[in-house]
Amino acid sequence: MALDDSWFTEAANGYGLSLKVKKKLHDEQSPYQRIEIFETETFGRLMTLDGLVMLTGRDNFIYHEMMTHPVLFTHSNPKNVVIVGGGDCGTLREVLKHKTVKQVLQVELDERVTRVAEQFFPELCESNNDKRAKFLFQDAIQWMEDTAAASVDVIILDTTDPVGQASRLFSVPFYKDCMRVLRDGGIMVGQSESPLFNMDILRHMHQTMEEAGCDDKLTIHFPQCTYPSGWWSATMARKGQKLNGFRETAARKKTFATRYYNADIHLACQTMPNFVNEALDGKGDW
Amino acid sequence: MALDDSWFTEAANGYGLSLKVKKKLHDEQSPYQRIEIFETETFGRLMTLDGLVMLTGRDNFIYHEMMTHPVLFTHSNPKNVVIVGGGDCGTLREVLKHKTVKQVLQVELDERVTRVAEQFFPELCESNNDKRAKFLFQDAIQWMEDTAAASVDVIILDTTDPVGQASRLFSVPFYKDCMRVLRDGGIMVGQSESPLFNMDILRHMHQTMEEAGCDDKLTIHFPQCTYPSGWWSATMARKGQKLNGFRETAARKKTFATRYYNADIHLACQTMPNFVNEALDGKGDW
Repeated sequence: MALDDSWFTEAANGYGLSLKVKKKLHDEQSPYQRIEIFETETFGRLMTLDGLVMLTGRDNFIYHEMMTHPVLFTHSNPKNVVIVGGGDCGTLREVLKHKTVKQVLQVELDERVTRVAEQFFPELCESNNDKRAKFLFQDAIQWMEDTAAASVDVIILDTTDPVGQASRLFSVPFYKDCMRVLRDGGIMVGQSESPLFNMDILRHMHQTMEEAGCDDKLTIHFPQCTYPSGWWSATMARKGQKLNGFRETAARKKTFATRYYNADIHLACQTMPNFVNEALDGKGDW
Repeated sequence: MALDDSWFTEAANGYGLSLKVKKKLHDEQSPYQRIEIFETETFGRLMTLDGLVMLTGRDNFIYHEMMTHPVLFTHSNPKNVVIVGGGDCGTLREVLKHKTVKQVLQVELDERVTRVAEQFFPELCESNNDKRAKFLFQDAIQWMEDTAAASVDVIILDTTDPVGQASRLFSVPFYKDCMRVLRDGGIMVGQSESPLFNMDILRHMHQTMEEAGCDDKLTIHFPQCTYPSGWWSATMARKGQKLNGFRETAARKKTFATRYYNADIHLACQTMPNFVNEALDGKGDW
């Protein structure tokens, strides 16, 4: 069957994912990108940037929980957190659930993404007025360059794909700055694309983190229905310590609700299929 | 963007998945269903039954490995295995990798699926001539009714979705027959659809297995790119024993190659997100 324009479709590399649209709610060209919001038939609201799915109301909980709780329960005492990108504020909301966190700074290039999210995804923005949350709308590369060494516990790279502008956020110089800005034991985590479709990017991220001087790396994985292949990953890199272990008791006794994350998932999401392990070791058929 | 007829698309419930087609290789109406084979741009060959994706060359390894190795390494000594459905023979190939297995009987309704698979997916059929493999092309419901009690160690329900004909393969009477046919400690496993899209089916399977008199149930999950939502599950039910533990040493020392499965994945795939645990407990927001 053919799909007509009543569907939003993201298609690349011989694979397409479509969501049936009831109505387009918003369409603007910001200084940086085209931002569109759709009301879909079965996925709630959909935000796209330059025609690529950023999130839907139905399944963003998995991504946002898995970009935050694993790294925050791995760090022994995360107080200062920086989010790079993350304009929809879903990551910010999850970070603020952690009582150890004293300050979260979100450095997002495009203020319009956040303003549009406030309007169309108010549930993701419900913690934006938390006194611990601060917003900077500027280039994160410059910000990271200018920031004092050893001043941050966790950096979350909640970015778009490594193409165009965003590719600089996956580079050795930027990761080196992140490592400098992290305190000893600090961790950065970046979304690292699909293990099935993007092993080249995943391998590149590992190499780049290594070159940037991290002391350990760890990739986790989780389903993400509306991203290409339906399977996604995030990769952590740590300064001065290994990435084994986490605050398991705190995770088991966490005082906030999650729909995907739990302490058992924390352990399970680190377990990789053979072909991923082999590819990350520079071997195998992927 | 709209997708034209150069794409194969499976769409339902406001969600669509498309694969770019180079060429249609085969199209027939068997006595039971329409069987089509496509050469795709980036997923190798694609088999569809009545317009629904059965498998692609690129990602079937995950499904076939996860329908077989977890159940076979959970059973203490699987000798006699029955596959219901499984006409493409990928599940059969994986089962035959286990040296403990003395006989595998595949009971598939539609012989044409197997003949077409032999032609277009020879890699999945490479073990069809193994002396331990036997094929019956007939209705599995009748076969299960007629089969002696306590004669089989593992039953793998590698079926299509529970609609039309196949819905009888998800019913209490059929599961009761499976339980009767299993030896003590025997395990059946059935594909149990998407945790994100089909929680109603997953819950129904658990209830149905319970009513059929199983002594324990366990759902596992794994990515499956070309099935709806990109995330899939299988559910085991055991006769006379609990489903905790597996032959971990044997799994770690297995003498055959796998691309997805390993002993750590065996443990990890049993770990469920909160919303799935809650739904299976009859609670929560899913």
